[in-house]
Parts: sequence; C-alpha cells; structure tokens
Amino acid sequence: MLKGKVLIAQGGGPTAVINQSLVGAVLEARNFAGVEHVYGARHGVSGIINEDFLDLSRETLENLEAVADTPCSALGSTRDKPDVKYCKDIFKVLQAHDIGTFFYIGGNDSSDTLRILSEEAVKAKYALRCIHIPKTIDNDLTVNDHTPGFPSAARFVASAFAGINQDNAALKGVYVGVVMGRHAGFLTAAAAGAKLYSDDGPHLIYLPESTFDMTAFVKDVKRIYDKLGRCVIAVSEGIHDAKGTPIITKLAKDVERDAHGNIQLSGTGALADLLCDQIKEKTGITRVRGDTFGYLQRSFLGCVSDVDRIEAREVGRKAALFANYSDRAHGTVTIHRVGDYAVEYKLSQLKDVAGKTKVMHKSFINREANGVTAKFMDYLAPLLGSNMPVASRLDMSNGVPKILTKK
Amino acid sequence: MLKGKVLIAQGGGPTAVINQSLVGAVLEARNFAGVEHVYGARHGVSGIINEDFLDLSRETLENLEAVADTPCSALGSTRDKPDVKYCKDIFKVLQAHDIGTFFYIGGNDSSDTLRILSEEAVKAKYALRCIHIPKTIDNDLTVNDHTPGFPSAARFVASAFAGINQDNAALKGVYVGVVMGRHAGFLTAAAAGAKLYSDDGPHLIYLPESTFDMTAFVKDVKRIYDKLGRCVIAVSEGIHDAKGTPIITKLAKDVERDAHGNIQLSGTGALADLLCDQIKEKTGITRVRGDTFGYLQRSFLGCVSDVDRIEAREVGRKAALFANYSDRAHGTVTIHRVGDYAVEYKLSQLKDVAGKTKVMHKSFINREANGVTAKFMDYLAPLLGSNMPVASRLDMSNGVPKILTKK
Repeated sequence: MLKGKVLIAQGGGPTAVINQSLVGAVLEARNFAGVEHVYGARHGVSGIINEDFLDLSRETLENLEAVADTPCSALGSTRDKPDVKYCKDIFKVLQAHDIGTFFYIGGNDSSDTLRILSEEAVKAKYALRCIHIPKTIDNDLTVNDHTPGFPSAARFVASAFAGINQDNAALKGVYVGVVMGRHAGFLTAAAAGAKLYSDDGPHLIYLPESTFDMTAFVKDVKRIYDKLGRCVIAVSEGIHDAKGTPIITKLAKDVERDAHGNIQLSGTGALADLLCDQIKEKTGITRVRGDTFGYLQRSFLGCVSDVDRIEAREVGRKAALFANYSDRAHGTVTIHRVGDYAVEYKLSQLKDVAGKTKVMHKSFINREANGVTAKFMDYLAPLLGSNMPVASRLDMSNGVPKILTKK
Repeated sequence: MLKGKVLIAQGGGPTAVINQSLVGAVLEARNFAGVEHVYGARHGVSGIINEDFLDLSRETLENLEAVADTPCSALGSTRDKPDVKYCKDIFKVLQAHDIGTFFYIGGNDSSDTLRILSEEAVKAKYALRCIHIPKTIDNDLTVNDHTPGFPSAARFVASAFAGINQDNAALKGVYVGVVMGRHAGFLTAAAAGAKLYSDDGPHLIYLPESTFDMTAFVKDVKRIYDKLGRCVIAVSEGIHDAKGTPIITKLAKDVERDAHGNIQLSGTGALADLLCDQIKEKTGITRVRGDTFGYLQRSFLGCVSDVDRIEAREVGRKAALFANYSDRAHGTVTIHRVGDYAVEYKLSQLKDVAGKTKVMHKSFINREANGVTAKFMDYLAPLLGSNMPVASRLDMSNGVPKILTKK
C-alpha cells in the first residue's frame, strides 16, 4: 500500500520526457489518500544526503503539467554512484524524514544505485520500497523493449539527418555526424529513421556494436562518394577498435572519467574532426564537414515523440500503482511491446536491469557493419511518433533538353 | 511584363524556408498567361553553365507544396562566384534557351553574383531581368529588417539553448555552444530568445561585432560560475581578436577557403574545444562541455518559424509580381518592418545589398560586449513565430525543512 511520505528523484543524463515520468508518478501518488507528502530530492541521491527536498504535494496541477512538457530533469540530476557508506547516509535521512517509498527515475547507472540502496535497506532492516522508473536516450536497458527518452532523441536525430541529407544534396561533399551512444548504437541507428528515397543519407552508419576499422571506413566513404558525388555518415561516439579502445581516445590528450568510470565522449568535437581529417587525407575529397550532435539531441526544446511522451508519463504513473498494488517490495517498471504498435508495463526485478547494458541485436545491423536492417527500421518506426515531417524533392524527370552541350 | 521563359536558381547555404521562396516565385510566375516555362537551374549558377535545368512548369501543386515544407535548396546550391568569363558563358546559355527573367534566391554572395550578371547583361545588350530573392540564416543583408531563413534558424538556436539551459541546471558545469555567424552575430544572439527567468542561460554571449578577449572571457565565465554554480555560453564561430584574426585560426592547422575567399569556420568542433580547454585550464572547473551547432541550425527538419515560412513565401511571390509590374529592370526584394509586427516588401536596388554585410547595431549589444540588450529582444521576439515552447520549472519555494543538517 502506498502511504506516508514518498520520495522521488531523477538521476543520470536528461531526456526530453523525463519530467513526464516525474509528473506521472507525483500525480498518481497524490491520488492515494494515505500519502501524506510527495517529496522531490534535488540532484538525485546527492539531494537526499543534503536533505535538499522540495514538497511536490504543494505544486499546482497547472505548473506540474508545464514542467512535464519541459525537457531535462526538473529536480536536477547527479552522476553520483552511492557506495555502502553513501547508502547508510541516505538511510539516516530517509529515516529522519520517515520516508517509506523511493522512486528513482534513471538509466542503468541509476538503477544500479537503486539496487545497492534496496539491498542496504534490507541489511539495515529499514522498510523501504524502491521503484526504478526507466529513462535513457541510449535505449540500453535490458528487459525493456525500449526506454522512455529514446524515442524523442531518435526523432531529433532522424529529423537532423533528414535535414542534413538535403543540405548535403544541395552543396555536395562528405558529412560526418557524431551521435551519442557509448556501448549501444540505437540512437545513431535512428539517423536512418526519416530516409525516404533509396539514395537519401545517411548512406553509412557505424555503431559501437561492431569493430571500427579506419581503412574499411575510408573505403566505404569513397565508394559512396564516387557513386553519388556525396556521402552522409552517422557515427556513434563510442566506436572502438578491435581491442575495444574508443577511437576518440586515440587523440584525446586528457581522458576524463566520471564517478562511474566512464570516459567522457560527449562535449567535444574531437571524434568528428578526426574522422573528417582521415577522409580528407586518404581520399583527397576536399569538402568534408563534421558535426557532433552533443547535448542538443537529449535536451532540445520542442522535439518530442508523442509515443514517448505518453509512455514516459505511464511509467511514472505505473510506479505509483505498482508501489500500491504489487506484492514485490522493489522493482523496475519495464516496457514490453505486445502489438504493432502497443505496449504493456510490468514491474520487473531490479537485478535484471541494474548496471546491465543492452546493445543492438545482430539482426538490426547489416552484414557489412555499416548500416541497419529493415528489421531495425520496423522496430524504430512507431517510436518516432506521429506527424514526422517528410523531406520532399522536385521531380527530376522534368529535365530540360540541353541545347549547347550535347553529351 | 513577365513572359516567355523564366529561370530560377538557389545559391549559398541552405535554410529551412528557402524552398518556400522557390515555390512562391514558381507558382506566382505560372499565374501569368505570357509565361511559357519556369525553369529551375540545378546547383545555382553552375547549373546554368551546365544547362542543367528542370522544367518546374510540369510540377504539380501538391509536390511543390511538399517541397516548400522541406528545408535546404531543392534545386541544389553552389558556392561559385561568377567572374566576367563565367557571366559570358551564362549569357550564351540564357540566349540559347531564350530566357528573359532570372530569379536568384540567395544571400549577399549570391546577390553580388546577380549584380555582376546584371551588369554584364547590360554590357552585352542582352535583355535580361535579374531579381534577387533574399535568404540567409546570418541575417546580414543590408536594407532588409531581417532576412528569410534567419527567423527559423533563430528559433532553432533559441530552442536549443532553452533545452541546454535545463540540461546545465540539472547537471551543473560550464557549457559552450558555438553558433554560425562569420561577421554578423544575429543568430548567436538569438540564443537568448527563449530565456524566461533571470538566471536562465545563456548567461554570456560573444559576437563577432566585438573584439574577443580570452582573459575577459575566462573572467566572465568564472564570475557567473561562482554565482550560479553553472554557466551557459553562446559564441559566434566568427569571434576574432583585436587584429580581426578569427580565434579559430589560432589553432587550425590548415585554413580552408571557399571560392569567395571565406575561411571555413563550420563543420569542425575546434573552436568549442579550444574555449573549453581554456576554461578548464584557467579556472580549474572540471565539467566543461562544448558543442558546435553546425549544419543542424540551418537544415533541421521540423523547426520552422511560421512568420519566416509566410515571409519566405511572400518574397518569392513578390519577385514574380515585381518582375511583371515594376519599371525597374533589376532589383532585390527587401523586407521592411512597418508595424509591431507587420512588414512591407519593396524592390530595392541590387547595388545596395550586393556583397554588403549588415552587422548587429551597437544598441543590440550590451556595454560589456558579453550579452544582448532589451532592444534586441524586442527585435527578435516576433520573428521566432507562434507557439514557441516554454521551459518551466518546479516551485523552488516549496523547500522541506532540514532535520539532520541545520545550516
């Protein structure tokens, strides 16, 4: 039964719809007569340690709905990864505030935080119910068909590449777009989401699921360029060599790591520049441009998949419902595709998701490891949501006969 | 009178609404009974030389409208800048195809191309009517209040920074976003377009209209960071030192130039990385991230200001109407703000726009040269269009009293 004081927090990287989950959980929890307060911890678990709480019971529906439509964690986020000492400090605060339920919205790092916390709660005989609410643009949570946040980021990446394909067709040359994705290539693969004609870009897609070979890469680019006079390429930031060493570390002076031991891949244009230099140097093509999509793909205001918006709200609501009706003390809300297109939500075990990473299935990647399959496109299509804009072209069959130049 | 064969082409960098102008001109020209054909040259003036024409009279309304809603030059573009020899070759083709009217959609480089062309036409006693249709995300055309393409790009940049501001508030640190703009800072200044609260980012904006001083920059960043615990910065790609040397050339190995003699500033993440390194090194702040907005800001599919969409269509339509009703042989369609918010269109002289660059007026830039004024915000606001999404925040006055930690 959901009662007393409920705490909610947001961890890890922001998404376009993470506040839908926050608002879904808050509003649903507030519906239960036994719930006294819904607190929000600012900046994830670090806000618990600092007793930095907002009383979300005092928020108006109007403002919560406005926040729901705003990208990025409204409560603030954190990259802190609690150890045993950290968890004991968390208990002290939860006990002092008499909090019995904790909802944590986050990805696989955040779900692992919750797993440690729930285990320490058992050891400390503290009656705490921990429910993980999924989110990550990486789409790399196990058990889930996909993860809230990914569809909107995918829509952004697909829309960006659809525009860039037009740009590249207008002014020719080679374009390299670097997309977020450390181990899982789903978001980079979404670059193909708005392809319409067979010669539309991205013409090549490189994912962290495969080994990146610079020689094969340059050869691929030259082949497409020779055929079409242009080439659009989508590359995951996490591409690596046969030994698993990220390509970006081959040139980064200082490798920066976060509290989870992850190397910083975003927030620098180094990988795009490296790949562009390689193409220029080895093919002789002069107009080669690179962009790193960076933070825009996870936080852009106004690019949301309606499917994502609805599902992100639902996983929040479901967390409150599972907390009230399920026999299971802890768990993670998971999304399961049950139709084309329909989903169901379950309360799964934390250990099945926590700290694990799902990558793209082999059947989603082409044999040459430089593109995606029709099966992936089928998987992706409904997630992008309604009213995806379509890039159209003039009718190229209306050519005017040449008068001076006869070929 | 508009009659015979009409030719249209697109030059320079793509915009989100450049095809609205194309379709506006084509449809309006097709309304005139005396017009036999409307041809489109592929890839700007280079398509004329190559006699690479599409007969746009054969396009359906349905397809033209779909193309109008597609970003980037549907006819293809070029960076070619014709000299006298090039222009003579153009005449040969125009004469061979009996073309009497030429509409060229482009920015200040393209309008200069048209000026040369119209002058050569006079010398060659070739009866050619040249009308320039304005477009550029840089917003740097003289005479015009603003230029089609800028409002949509501004909406993209404002939306991006509104999201990044939330991202930076959630995970703290310093963020540097590099925006297009070689000499004119309008697009970078638009980063402030969606600011709502006084502590919203971007907190600092650096424009090519002012001299960039690295020491002052680092000091500004540190001041904001010390006050807010975070800092969001918008920087024009064209920032330069007191001698006018672009900051980016201070580290670029090979400086690449286009046919107009312009140094390549976009398509590389080097400037953002340089600025991030400087901040890390000189302030000791560890979480510093940089993005280069690159081609997304001019070609993103699905981010259009409705004001821009309407005006881009109108300048195209007006070109056809001026070609028919005006006594002036050549000219450029210009936009004039006559109300708040209303515009009028005029046919101005090519020489007043061609090859000239408008930069931001002093009254648009703050005294410290690190931000914009209220006057600029008033100028920008109507251009962003309707239904700009708003980033909302939780009510921070609902803090819960601390129990364990008393400060």
